[in-house]
Amino acid sequence: MTLDALPPPQEALAARYGAGPAPAPGPWNETIALMLAHRSVRAYVPGPLPEGLLETLLAAGQSAATSSNMQSWSVVAVADPAQKARLAALSQDQAYVRDCALFLCFVADTSRARRLAAREGLELPSLACLETFLTAATDCAFAAQNMALAAESLGLGCCYIGALRNRPEAVAAELGLPEGAAPVFGLCIGHEDPARITAVKPRLPQSVVLHHGRYDADDADAVAAYDATLAAHGHGTGRSSKAWAARVHDRLSNPAYLNGRERLREALGALGFPLR
Amino acid sequence: MTLDALPPPQEALAARYGAGPAPAPGPWNETIALMLAHRSVRAYVPGPLPEGLLETLLAAGQSAATSSNMQSWSVVAVADPAQKARLAALSQDQAYVRDCALFLCFVADTSRARRLAAREGLELPSLACLETFLTAATDCAFAAQNMALAAESLGLGCCYIGALRNRPEAVAAELGLPEGAAPVFGLCIGHEDPARITAVKPRLPQSVVLHHGRYDADDADAVAAYDATLAAHGHGTGRSSKAWAARVHDRLSNPAYLNGRERLREALGALGFPLR
Repeated sequence: MTLDALPPPQEALAARYGAGPAPAPGPWNETIALMLAHRSVRAYVPGPLPEGLLETLLAAGQSAATSSNMQSWSVVAVADPAQKARLAALSQDQAYVRDCALFLCFVADTSRARRLAAREGLELPSLACLETFLTAATDCAFAAQNMALAAESLGLGCCYIGALRNRPEAVAAELGLPEGAAPVFGLCIGHEDPARITAVKPRLPQSVVLHHGRYDADDADAVAAYDATLAAHGHGTGRSSKAWAARVHDRLSNPAYLNGRERLREALGALGFPLR
Repeated sequence: MTLDALPPPQEALAARYGAGPAPAPGPWNETIALMLAHRSVRAYVPGPLPEGLLETLLAAGQSAATSSNMQSWSVVAVADPAQKARLAALSQDQAYVRDCALFLCFVADTSRARRLAAREGLELPSLACLETFLTAATDCAFAAQNMALAAESLGLGCCYIGALRNRPEAVAAELGLPEGAAPVFGLCIGHEDPARITAVKPRLPQSVVLHHGRYDADDADAVAAYDATLAAHGHGTGRSSKAWAARVHDRLSNPAYLNGRERLREALGALGFPLR
């Protein structure tokens, strides 16, 4: 992505909502334009990353909010081709995990607090609570989103990898994670293949996602219209034109389709998260 | 925050890591500078928000990645003073929930998929999986982080509210959430009180959070040094100078200190998330 090529508001909003209704342009600046231009990049070409990139991205990630300043997340950065290939194999053989320049593994990390408590002879029974895992997972996501956007602001492409949860114990072993640390998702970072640039993916109409004061569940027509929006987008890009309803059904109709993630609770328990 | 007052790299990194070791400045731009300058704003003054703000923020949030394009999140926007006061009362009486101009409630939302399936006569057994809740919660966080940063890019202040999980069933009732939808966190947005501007909070040294290839648990010295960094920061701002070790212990030593969140699993179950 070239920053000086960021589209103006009306064009950016039209791309983000496709054939569906887009809001009128409101306040705008380069940061917002950059967010609107996001695309998940799944095709990378080799090339060096800027010096100091990882440290800058990490500073951006650490600058995000973190629940009660617990900072219960870590990131394991993987640049070695052989290790990336092993992690790709553990993540549903997604080639972009192997092909990206830098693969970041985001870790819900209560092991730091455990080590601290062990050194001081303290007990931390709340580590067993679901709440503690959830704040660690959202800490990961707040930080990662800053890091992804920071990478995009530097002209790089990104793609989150939920498949890092397909085999959590094996990933934890690969990364040498201590007890109380579990992989939550990955993030590919690298140079987008200029021959395989994709289009911005349209999202649900705002009326479906945004509620004023009280949740409004009357969304049947808008969701049906989004089916047509996504199908039109698919035809335009030559990629799958499957409607949203069919995608939701494919994803959720059978736990076995979750590729291992249907046993996430058991896996997290084995990694030190009882989730009580 | 005034954008033209964003500090240069060295200064921004020094503020973010306080008395601790900061990385050398790397690649840099306004978006990254904005991230580094983040502070949670807990003191607001009244004042109108820009026209079209909410729709622009939502477009920024919807532009973030979402697991498998499921978009399993919603936001309930609350601007009415009486409703903000009720939500503040449900969120540990945090005055900033009441005082901010706009309070956004982020909702892990599988109710849309449920309605879709009901209309088409389909079953979606994977809705019961922990994985489905986790992706909904991280979807919320990716979107919210874009929205928070977008608000900050427009000169507004923000603060996440984890206390929205203290009484999830009561919050769900207040917002009229359908089954399969649960509050995950809130986000205050508004005009910072210029008389109560806080300093950037220093984070853990990068060596503690960042690992290369394999997790390195040898962090005792760096974590101890961070205790001193935070204490120095506290003295400088006149706020609590409690060291990090003490904060971690306060937070995690007794589930009752979680103010209701120790029963989050039960609450989510009641709202339609069995978390199997």
